[in-house]
Amino acid sequence: MSVSPDILKGTIIKSRVRLARNLKGYPFRVKDPLLARDIIKNVNRAIVKCGTFNLFYTANLSNTKLEAMKEKHLISSNLIENQFGAALISQDESLSIMVNEEDVIREQCFMKGLRLFEAYKMLDKIDDEIIKNLDVAFDEKLGFLTACPTNVGTGLRASVMLFLPALTESGKIGSLENQLSSLGLTIRGLYGEGSDAEGCVYQISNEITLGSSEYDILSVVEDSVERICALERDECERLYAKNHIQTMDKARKAFGILTNAVVLSYSEFLRNIAKVKLGAMLGLIDIEDIEKLDDLIVSVRPFVLCEQFGKDLSPLDRDLVRAEVVSKQLLKLKG
Amino acid sequence: MSVSPDILKGTIIKSRVRLARNLKGYPFRVKDPLLARDIIKNVNRAIVKCGTFNLFYTANLSNTKLEAMKEKHLISSNLIENQFGAALISQDESLSIMVNEEDVIREQCFMKGLRLFEAYKMLDKIDDEIIKNLDVAFDEKLGFLTACPTNVGTGLRASVMLFLPALTESGKIGSLENQLSSLGLTIRGLYGEGSDAEGCVYQISNEITLGSSEYDILSVVEDSVERICALERDECERLYAKNHIQTMDKARKAFGILTNAVVLSYSEFLRNIAKVKLGAMLGLIDIEDIEKLDDLIVSVRPFVLCEQFGKDLSPLDRDLVRAEVVSKQLLKLKG
Repeated sequence: MSVSPDILKGTIIKSRVRLARNLKGYPFRVKDPLLARDIIKNVNRAIVKCGTFNLFYTANLSNTKLEAMKEKHLISSNLIENQFGAALISQDESLSIMVNEEDVIREQCFMKGLRLFEAYKMLDKIDDEIIKNLDVAFDEKLGFLTACPTNVGTGLRASVMLFLPALTESGKIGSLENQLSSLGLTIRGLYGEGSDAEGCVYQISNEITLGSSEYDILSVVEDSVERICALERDECERLYAKNHIQTMDKARKAFGILTNAVVLSYSEFLRNIAKVKLGAMLGLIDIEDIEKLDDLIVSVRPFVLCEQFGKDLSPLDRDLVRAEVVSKQLLKLKG
Repeated sequence: MSVSPDILKGTIIKSRVRLARNLKGYPFRVKDPLLARDIIKNVNRAIVKCGTFNLFYTANLSNTKLEAMKEKHLISSNLIENQFGAALISQDESLSIMVNEEDVIREQCFMKGLRLFEAYKMLDKIDDEIIKNLDVAFDEKLGFLTACPTNVGTGLRASVMLFLPALTESGKIGSLENQLSSLGLTIRGLYGEGSDAEGCVYQISNEITLGSSEYDILSVVEDSVERICALERDECERLYAKNHIQTMDKARKAFGILTNAVVLSYSEFLRNIAKVKLGAMLGLIDIEDIEKLDDLIVSVRPFVLCEQFGKDLSPLDRDLVRAEVVSKQLLKLKG
């Protein structure tokens, strides 16, 4: 068996671009409720030509709804903590504009695959409207001004979410971290504690926003992601090409657990879905649409699950519902 | 949920009765090949009225065949070590007479369930023929003479094979061992190392063969087995009645592993089949015939598997074939 070039399809999950903006004459962190409301209205009006956005005031949302939005990366912990915050979210949830977060405005665009430039281009249109219609804080020397100095300059953070089972298994994430650091990039596990990424899902982002152009930042991240994908592919070849029976066995047993579970914690789900996905990418288990596995990973997160189920669920009930949803979905995806 | 009284069905697997006999004027352990052949022929002739037996000379059998017979408890390691040994085995494999084992003659009878008296009665007929037709070594004071002093007297060993997942989980096998010891009984794990019984299968046997009648020995073992079954049922009630979701979950995940595995070692099989069987006994997983699970536990043992497959298999090939056989069988047994 040799590792298929299609493996890259599953390695790159999604791209995210974020811009941080503030308003001249306003504090970075607005604490006055009336002022906060005004800003929200102004931002909402500023992007009126950019399509349909739903406006959510954090104060009006249940904890479950807020946590579900956070699990989908549409909003941040920081926004939830601000009782005067709001989020403007596009219908397809590919665009999210947080208002009164750490910065007054945080614009985000998400796209499947490695499409940082495309996502940036889409976000730039919204940013143009905001700059045109609002008095955005900008310094000729520094660039855009932000609450945290690490965001000053472009205010741009470009992130790519990657699935790296082989580099995880061979323990090479640590050395990757050092190499990326010298390029001004970070890698962190997205689920689970620290670098001990359950589910083998990581996010690569730029740390530096100052002194580089947007183009340079996006290029550095994209180039690094491509290099990491090549490393992952080599590591796959090294680890699994000669052990395809064992890898197939692990993938199928994980599939067996996920399709027969009665109780399924998110952590047990992640460990097993990673094996199923790897098996599917290597062609060792029939899953028709590997991308759908990534959707499943988001859709059974604790609060997203409650949101979809239409009511709050106790932790045990979540695990029961998750087991049912996962089993049904996986059996459907199996060719 | 309360534990069904049917649980006892799965707890008792099978009964075995064994009688050790020797011949007057012959050494216990025959080392002369011609003498050994003579004895085999004489024993074969002695039981001619007892039905059809197949005669196997250990010297004529492949290692795989010998090991498979040993895995089915039809013959012992001791017999395999003797190149002049033989076994007379009934068509249905419920009767086995080893010749030139540790003792010259070892008669065995196996029956499903707790049927020591029945098994003894059947074996006694064979023993009567042997005593009638051969000059069996017997001492008025001591009873039947045997190679090992622990078998002198009745030469009887009565054993019952039990499935004890609850007592295993609660760590009570150790204290059970002490209680049984004071009654002259032993308990040992049948698969796996020492008392660490993978698969939770144990054998209860008498240690003392001297100074008690056959009836007393069989009674003590049967009574103890009934008490152990009651303990197991109580422990089931205590452990699982309030945790039926978790127990169902464990059983179904184990079922998922066993029906999806590509490679399945005997040890991984045992750990998981024990969970499936417990789930089936508690009515938490649909298995139509629980007894068939016990048959499966024997039929996928390493050498029995080779025997059924019709050729020697490497350890990896055995694990591949086992995965296939187990998956097919379990899916068939599932209602």
